[in-house]
Amino acid sequence: MKQSQLFTKTIKEIPKDETSFNAQILIRAGFVDKVGAGIYNFLPLGLRVLNKINNIVRDEMATISGQEVLMAALTPKEVWQTTDRWDNFDALFKLVGNDDKEYALGATHEEIVTPLAKKFLCSYKELPKSIYQIQVKFRNEPRAKAGLLRGREFFMKDMYSFHANQADLDQYYEEVKAAYFRIYARLGLEDLTYLTYSSGGAFSQFSHEFQTLTEAGEDHIYICSDCRVAVNREIIKEHNFCPVCQNKNLTEAKAIEVGNIFKLGTKFSKAFDMKYMDDNGQAQEVIMGCYGLGPSRIMGTVVEVFNDQRGIIWPESIAPFKIHLLSLKENEAANEIYLELIKNNIEVLFDDREEIAAGEKFADADLIGCPYRLVVSAKTLQAGGVEIKARPSDQMGIIPLNQIINKFSH
Amino acid sequence: MKQSQLFTKTIKEIPKDETSFNAQILIRAGFVDKVGAGIYNFLPLGLRVLNKINNIVRDEMATISGQEVLMAALTPKEVWQTTDRWDNFDALFKLVGNDDKEYALGATHEEIVTPLAKKFLCSYKELPKSIYQIQVKFRNEPRAKAGLLRGREFFMKDMYSFHANQADLDQYYEEVKAAYFRIYARLGLEDLTYLTYSSGGAFSQFSHEFQTLTEAGEDHIYICSDCRVAVNREIIKEHNFCPVCQNKNLTEAKAIEVGNIFKLGTKFSKAFDMKYMDDNGQAQEVIMGCYGLGPSRIMGTVVEVFNDQRGIIWPESIAPFKIHLLSLKENEAANEIYLELIKNNIEVLFDDREEIAAGEKFADADLIGCPYRLVVSAKTLQAGGVEIKARPSDQMGIIPLNQIINKFSH
Repeated sequence: MKQSQLFTKTIKEIPKDETSFNAQILIRAGFVDKVGAGIYNFLPLGLRVLNKINNIVRDEMATISGQEVLMAALTPKEVWQTTDRWDNFDALFKLVGNDDKEYALGATHEEIVTPLAKKFLCSYKELPKSIYQIQVKFRNEPRAKAGLLRGREFFMKDMYSFHANQADLDQYYEEVKAAYFRIYARLGLEDLTYLTYSSGGAFSQFSHEFQTLTEAGEDHIYICSDCRVAVNREIIKEHNFCPVCQNKNLTEAKAIEVGNIFKLGTKFSKAFDMKYMDDNGQAQEVIMGCYGLGPSRIMGTVVEVFNDQRGIIWPESIAPFKIHLLSLKENEAANEIYLELIKNNIEVLFDDREEIAAGEKFADADLIGCPYRLVVSAKTLQAGGVEIKARPSDQMGIIPLNQIINKFSH
Repeated sequence: MKQSQLFTKTIKEIPKDETSFNAQILIRAGFVDKVGAGIYNFLPLGLRVLNKINNIVRDEMATISGQEVLMAALTPKEVWQTTDRWDNFDALFKLVGNDDKEYALGATHEEIVTPLAKKFLCSYKELPKSIYQIQVKFRNEPRAKAGLLRGREFFMKDMYSFHANQADLDQYYEEVKAAYFRIYARLGLEDLTYLTYSSGGAFSQFSHEFQTLTEAGEDHIYICSDCRVAVNREIIKEHNFCPVCQNKNLTEAKAIEVGNIFKLGTKFSKAFDMKYMDDNGQAQEVIMGCYGLGPSRIMGTVVEVFNDQRGIIWPESIAPFKIHLLSLKENEAANEIYLELIKNNIEVLFDDREEIAAGEKFADADLIGCPYRLVVSAKTLQAGGVEIKARPSDQMGIIPLNQIINKFSH
């Protein structure tokens, strides 16, 4: 993409109405735009990042047999009454249609997925199954001041699994746990992300959150350095020790919840009378699990974790472009490199803008944060190539023109 | 995908609460599920089709320099008041947040895109630009009885373009028209789809709809067979003739509006005071166009147009799978073919279900409507291969095992 054609441009001033770092810098760099508290437009650069996160999630859900669906956002009042959550679920947006029917905007989808799955999963032969969606969700948050970390409107991957018995759910739950860690590893968040024990509800002693350490986090977790797990605030009050090794020496830290998994048991299958026939022809209750992960919150988390005073430092796996190619008054030579990179399917943002000073181009490249900066100038061409610098590093070098493609091809 | 693993199964009964053919058959075949009037869940097969339509649209929007974004669905009351549409826009869903702020659910996005574009498009050098999104939209429809043709919640591609002058908009408008016809051609709808003259508003004599002929259509159009254009009901009342050739002999037909394009002029840029600096440093009003197209409505339209009494007949470009491979008690041989097809990136649904009779497998294949049916049975293997049949045809033949990949590779 040529930067001269890009819809957005960077913004120098810190947005006045935005207190969170992730939103401030994502707005300044042109990734998102604020519509209201907790409500953002995703702009071309931001949508590229979001789609890359979504595709990593899809990839890993496929490895655990997750089938993608897309459920309705308008959800009828009756299904929420069936589970007694119409008045009890925190932060439902409610509205009334022309037909005088009441709806909630989907904040989570147990109430939709259970009656849906009931239509198709009737026999033990049809279990287990697992379906997920990546969808815009709505929560009527009283405070939404953390940018992409807490939205009134945000993206969520929510998966639901259906099992014939507890052992099957337990096994699948462990597979999901492993898939989640593969996702965080691909996002560069693995080292900072802790499996965190949380309250489990009626059907399990614990559920699990995935918490990524950062000072911007709204949660507090308590880390056991022996086991490399943590517990959340709820659990620390009940058990003042690590649930794995009973170690009492836990370290408090601030963190962002980047995922959570939960054994629902029969809570929702009971409410919707979802049963299956076992191999003896007996009706049995279906056992469920649910597995959430927020792609837009993850985008905000990555920005909180990977940055310096000059801007964002995107992990290569979700960077809007792999390369930011800057032409310093050498558009002809730079354009040849640009076309060659495109021909080889290497993602590149080409700063071809003619009236922008070198200093401003460097500042933009640092703010936007693509992994590699290539600079084409009279000086670099004289030195036999293009200047190359990795985003977080200060080390520059010259790469010969004929080695560029090879360097960036997989 | 193995059909034994597929989340859905086909349904024999016609859903009682559904009067439209497209929804009846899409529900029976397992593409969608009804949540309420005009509200559907997209299931694995249906989401595959929807994504294919979306990707064709993305492809063609890229050829006319459209940049993809994703705007908020929660839109603040104030922006609708700015354009005087809070009380005047037909069918806005409205709701109140915890902060006592009022919102509309996005039914269209001029009120969001104009203040957004105003932040970035300030100089003649930054024009023209065109941005689009593919997004779930909400309309508080009083009647929603036409299945995917009229949703309370539905998918829309909405594009907005910004120009320095009318001539530039006029030229871009023609480019969009051509891109739309390329989309309909790729969907197999070209021959049935008419450029239809519609009322133009304050800034243009006409706007244009794209109307696809089918008895299921809720619109009436009046076709000039000389020019291959049509006019809609509004226009026939004003001008009782073809606006291109003045022919008065127009033929009435029922049709579905599968797209519409509109020259907005300065209506929204005036409302939001969006101006740009021209090359003399003078502030000028930005000229806008908007371009809608409904991927989920198109999915319903395709089903209304391409079907027979046995089921859906998907065009290859958007079929959920290219091939439906049926094993009649020959799972081992069929599985080898399945793996070979997958290895060659040929999309295949493999009916590997062991306790399902041949007749039911044939009926499912016809109902689901993949373009090619391959049957593996003792008989076909004895005849040296696999039975092949194109979905709409009754002609069957045997294709040798070693020619299958070649036949379906591009």
